[in-house]
Amino acid sequence: MEYDQKKVEVCFTPAVFDCFRDPETVVVVVDVLRATSAICSAFMNGVDKIIPIGTIEEAREYKNKGYLLAAERDGFVLDFADFGNSPYNFTPERVKGKTIVYSTTNGTQAIQLASSCHKVAIGAFLNLSSLSQWLINQNRNVVILCAGWKNRFSLEDAVLAGAIAKKVLDHAGFYTECDSTLASLDLWSLAEPDIIGYIDKAAQRSRLRKNGLDDVIGFCHTLDLTHMIPLYSDGVLVAISEPAAVC
Amino acid sequence: MEYDQKKVEVCFTPAVFDCFRDPETVVVVVDVLRATSAICSAFMNGVDKIIPIGTIEEAREYKNKGYLLAAERDGFVLDFADFGNSPYNFTPERVKGKTIVYSTTNGTQAIQLASSCHKVAIGAFLNLSSLSQWLINQNRNVVILCAGWKNRFSLEDAVLAGAIAKKVLDHAGFYTECDSTLASLDLWSLAEPDIIGYIDKAAQRSRLRKNGLDDVIGFCHTLDLTHMIPLYSDGVLVAISEPAAVC
Repeated sequence: MEYDQKKVEVCFTPAVFDCFRDPETVVVVVDVLRATSAICSAFMNGVDKIIPIGTIEEAREYKNKGYLLAAERDGFVLDFADFGNSPYNFTPERVKGKTIVYSTTNGTQAIQLASSCHKVAIGAFLNLSSLSQWLINQNRNVVILCAGWKNRFSLEDAVLAGAIAKKVLDHAGFYTECDSTLASLDLWSLAEPDIIGYIDKAAQRSRLRKNGLDDVIGFCHTLDLTHMIPLYSDGVLVAISEPAAVC
Repeated sequence: MEYDQKKVEVCFTPAVFDCFRDPETVVVVVDVLRATSAICSAFMNGVDKIIPIGTIEEAREYKNKGYLLAAERDGFVLDFADFGNSPYNFTPERVKGKTIVYSTTNGTQAIQLASSCHKVAIGAFLNLSSLSQWLINQNRNVVILCAGWKNRFSLEDAVLAGAIAKKVLDHAGFYTECDSTLASLDLWSLAEPDIIGYIDKAAQRSRLRKNGLDDVIGFCHTLDLTHMIPLYSDGVLVAISEPAAVC
C-alpha cells in the first residue's frame, strides 16, 4: 500500500455491514437481480426521484398518499402496488419526471443500512464504467455492499462487486487487503468472458426462472447502458450523470 | 436434483449461520489459519480430548483447575496459557493422551455455534479426503461453516470449503443450489494447482506474516496428512478415524 491510497472492500451480506461501516466511506449497494438494476433503468428512463422504503406497511402508507408504488416480496408484486421489481416496468412512459416509492425483498433495506456513510451510490452492470469512474473521482475508501438474498451470499452480486473493484483498483490511488474483494475479483475474472453463461448457475437465476421472471437476466447483465449514478441522500435517490472514459 | 439427494451448503461467516442452522444437518467447521488445522494436528499426534471454549474468562477458570491450556487472541498467546494456536505446538510429547482446553479468536466460537446441529466435525486440508468420505457416509445435508475473521469472509476458509464441497458433490448422492458453495468451488478450482501461491494474497496470511507466525502456512495447506476426524459433542472434541480411498 502506498501512502494515502484508498482501500476497496466488498461486504457479501448486509448482516455483517457493521464490520465495514465508516462515516468517511463511499458505499455502493449492488443487487443485480433486480433492485439496483431496476433503479438504474428508472433513472436512465427519466425518473425524477425514487424513495426506497423497507417495510410493506410503509409501502401501503405511501400508496394511500397517492404515490406511484413499485413493490415486491420474493419476486411477486404486492397486490396494492402499481408494479413490481422488473427493470422493464420502469419505462419512460411510466416514470419520466415522476417520483416513485420502491420496496424490494433485499435491495432497499441494504440502501437504508448504508445511509450513515459518507455517500451511498447504486451500482449495476448497467452503469459499471461510469460508477467506477465516479468512485475513483471521490478519492475515498470504497465499500461495495452486496444486497444478497435474505442475508445469504449472491453470486451475481459478488461478480458485479468484482467488476467494480477491478476498475477502481486499476487506478493507482486504490488498494485492497480484503479477502472478499480478492474473491470477487477472481469470480469476475471467471465470469467476464461469458457473464450470462457464468451466472446461469446462480440461485437467484433459478428463483426467477421458477417464477417466470427470468426475462430480465440478459438486460441486468448488460454493461454500460447508462451514465446515470443514483445517489441516496436524506431518504431519497436522485441521479447524477458521470460520463466514463470507457462508456 | 434427484429424489433424496442431500444438499451441500457453505456459510461464509458465523454471523449468518442462523440461515443454515438445521438440527438434521452435519456441520463442518473450517478455520484453516489456524484453529481447525491445529485441532487436526493435535489428534494426529495423539491428544485424547479437546475442550473448545469461547471466552478468556473460561480459559482462566480451566487453567486454574489444572488443565493444559492452548489459547490465543489475534494471533498472540494469552499470558496465562501453556501455548498458543500454532499446529506446531501440539507435538506428541506435549499432547499424547492428554485433555487440552482450547480457545481462539474465531474457531472455537464457530464450533460452539454449530453445536445444536446433528453432528459437528472439524475440517482442515490435513484431513480433507477422510473428512469428505465420512461426510458422504453420513448421507445427510452438509453445511460447511467458515470461521472467517471476526465475522468477515476468509479466503483460505472458502477455498477449503470448495475443496470439501467438490469431493462430496462428486458423489451422486449430493447436490447444491447454494451460491456460496458455487463460489467456493470456483475459488478452489483457481487455487488447486498451487494452493500456497494462491493463498499468498489472503489477509490472514498477511496478519500471520506481520506477527512472525507464517511458518505454519505450508503445513496448514498440506492435503491428507491424517485420517482423524474430530467431532464435537457435549462440549468436547474427540476424534474418529475414517480411512479415505484417496488418502
